Amino acid sequence: MFENCMTNVRSKRPLVHNITNYVTVNDVANILLACGGSPIMSDDPEDVEDITSICGGLTINIGTLNKRSIEGMFRAGKRANELGHVLLLDPVGAGAGSLRTETAVKLMEELRFDVIRGNISEIKTLALGRGTTKGVDADVADAVTEENLDSAVEFAKSFAKKADCIVAITGAIDLVSDGDMCYVIRNGRPEMGCITGTGCQLSGMMTAFVTANPENKLTAAAAAVCAMGLAGEIGYGRMQKGDGNASYCIRIIDAVYNMNGDMLEKGAKYEVR
Amino acid sequence: MFENCMTNVRSKRPLVHNITNYVTVNDVANILLACGGSPIMSDDPEDVEDITSICGGLTINIGTLNKRSIEGMFRAGKRANELGHVLLLDPVGAGAGSLRTETAVKLMEELRFDVIRGNISEIKTLALGRGTTKGVDADVADAVTEENLDSAVEFAKSFAKKADCIVAITGAIDLVSDGDMCYVIRNGRPEMGCITGTGCQLSGMMTAFVTANPENKLTAAAAAVCAMGLAGEIGYGRMQKGDGNASYCIRIIDAVYNMNGDMLEKGAKYEVR
Amino acid sequence: MFENCMTNVRSKRPLVHNITNYVTVNDVANILLACGGSPIMSDDPEDVEDITSICGGLTINIGTLNKRSIEGMFRAGKRANELGHVLLLDPVGAGAGSLRTETAVKLMEELRFDVIRGNISEIKTLALGRGTTKGVDADVADAVTEENLDSAVEFAKSFAKKADCIVAITGAIDLVSDGDMCYVIRNGRPEMGCITGTGCQLSGMMTAFVTANPENKLTAAAAAVCAMGLAGEIGYGRMQKGDGNASYCIRIIDAVYNMNGDMLEKGAKYEVR
Repeated sequence: MFENCMTNVRSKRPLVHNITNYVTVNDVANILLACGGSPIMSDDPEDVEDITSICGGLTINIGTLNKRSIEGMFRAGKRANELGHVLLLDPVGAGAGSLRTETAVKLMEELRFDVIRGNISEIKTLALGRGTTKGVDADVADAVTEENLDSAVEFAKSFAKKADCIVAITGAIDLVSDGDMCYVIRNGRPEMGCITGTGCQLSGMMTAFVTANPENKLTAAAAAVCAMGLAGEIGYGRMQKGDGNASYCIRIIDAVYNMNGDMLEKGAKYEVR
Repeated sequence: MFENCMTNVRSKRPLVHNITNYVTVNDVANILLACGGSPIMSDDPEDVEDITSICGGLTINIGTLNKRSIEGMFRAGKRANELGHVLLLDPVGAGAGSLRTETAVKLMEELRFDVIRGNISEIKTLALGRGTTKGVDADVADAVTEENLDSAVEFAKSFAKKADCIVAITGAIDLVSDGDMCYVIRNGRPEMGCITGTGCQLSGMMTAFVTANPENKLTAAAAAVCAMGLAGEIGYGRMQKGDGNASYCIRIIDAVYNMNGDMLEKGAKYEVR
Repeated sequence: MFENCMTNVRSKRPLVHNITNYVTVNDVANILLACGGSPIMSDDPEDVEDITSICGGLTINIGTLNKRSIEGMFRAGKRANELGHVLLLDPVGAGAGSLRTETAVKLMEELRFDVIRGNISEIKTLALGRGTTKGVDADVADAVTEENLDSAVEFAKSFAKKADCIVAITGAIDLVSDGDMCYVIRNGRPEMGCITGTGCQLSGMMTAFVTANPENKLTAAAAAVCAMGLAGEIGYGRMQKGDGNASYCIRIIDAVYNMNGDMLEKGAKYEVR
């Protein structure tokens, strides 16, 4: 299944509109190209409706939100909903500040998302409607571990059911659920946490995967998570003595560029609960 | 001639003001430094006139335009015109949305550009005053090929004459015309299309080339196109097993950094029509 | 001492809020992660106070300032001051335009900075309250050299005393003074000037160093300068044939990632005056 998901991205080349933060936007664009998608960035309220109309999917990432781009998020999201396009939310830093939390909650109320992808602290904030996030990284106390995995899976399922969409909680162990099933994914490397924007990159790529696989959205979302983690493993294997996080970022995008469906199918490490 | 154009950039170190999108801005800055220029970015309406005044050239790239930066584009452009500075337009996504198309058309009406550089779909949009662009990449149906080359050259010449400036249409085959002559350039690699921002990078570098060669603007614009394409060839030749589009982007900028006028002269592949 | 400074950054993992330009922001985030800190970017006036409250330090970099982000700078800076957080100013392009100069001067008047870091032209602008900077690079006529070193050290000390904070003037020779002492640092490579944003990266990393070493702010600021310069030396030593400024940027961040306190202590080249 994952093989088909990736093959579809490469054959359909989905256009993905990203309203995303200016910190990691270049890497988001390059990983979208690497996986076979085509990225467009636009955040002005007067531009976003036209741009999202010609795309198949829209990523809303609130990493460096501002008043103007927030208006753009709502206008683009509504248009995407009207057109039946894939819509993904990455609530970066939800819980770290009230503007972020309130914006993410309001986006969930007013728009119909296909996928919400965040770290466990961000997703818990959305589930509670208020937050305790420390910055843009997940709180250690929240982390999904082998010890608390059962309850984490239950949380993922129940939040997905409540939010009526696919929920992807990424970290050392990744969970992707539509409320009924939950993929538990163990690809990736801890060193990926030393690169800015691997989460943002995954969100962009996930929008492309889901857009290219409208009949299998849950599988496609899980495939994107495995692809990112596998790229992290492949990229790490290519590190040279003296390389660090900046090289690693490059090598991960390169690994996606060179990945095909067969490699993804064989490299994916997951179970379904 | 191309040799001199590049040598002049390295010796004169032109300061180039860029009002450009936040997706590819870092690569634009680094390629400007790589070719011997010096980049400055500024888009606030209250800052741009001062900044453009101390520069020799101005690049206006509408890739992530917004109301504030659009005002900055007009104010900076007018000042650049008053001072006789080189002014280049990169109409990213013109045709993909009405704000982009209308902004690009209005910039052409109110400002006097030395060069307009875009892909064929963007340039056709400007020629028609309305657009059919699908995203920020050129429409396949529009592509300049060996089969339609004669008519494409005629189009480039007639649009350059009508717009009264140099027009650079880049793609698999690049055309650079001032209305009378047209350079037909065959440098480059198809894999460059898998990197975000090679067009934006070329626009920034082209402004530096034209600024450093005020007596030979057409030649300088064509030299910049050849330099970018040649860097794409050299960078591709340095790719290692497992490298992908992210490495390739780095290698292209590196290739510009290590290029001299002699290498450009010998590596340029063009004819004049 | 420098060894402890770096070890503290790695053990305390200071959260650093950066209001910084969109040109070099990705590299700033990655170098902060490389040195052991944790970056957050936010510039909207309604978001910055919350974000800075959960951090330990705040970097204000005016490289692509605009009306909205300027308001964010003042609001975040005031909150950081109230909370006793480390506050650093990077007056990019002060002297190049009146908005930049006036904003930098007003920030100094209304906020209490722990450190101001810039090139010699920017710092001279702040000392005079008006500028002659040519772009975002230091004016050659201003450069600190072995010949004018005595007077440059005196200038650094007197400006640090007047501004009542640590002043870091970086260039071929770096000066870091608190008004009484002045570190004269000779790490680094001239080729670092061909990369966009090494100054911005240093500012972000310096905020992390000072935040993690509240009892030794001057030493920590000097340690950050040495770490950046040493990374430039190590990264240069790893350059391959055909590499250029884009690779060099990656290699410098990688070198910080692989640096430990002992390497910094042994590699630092400085005298105290």
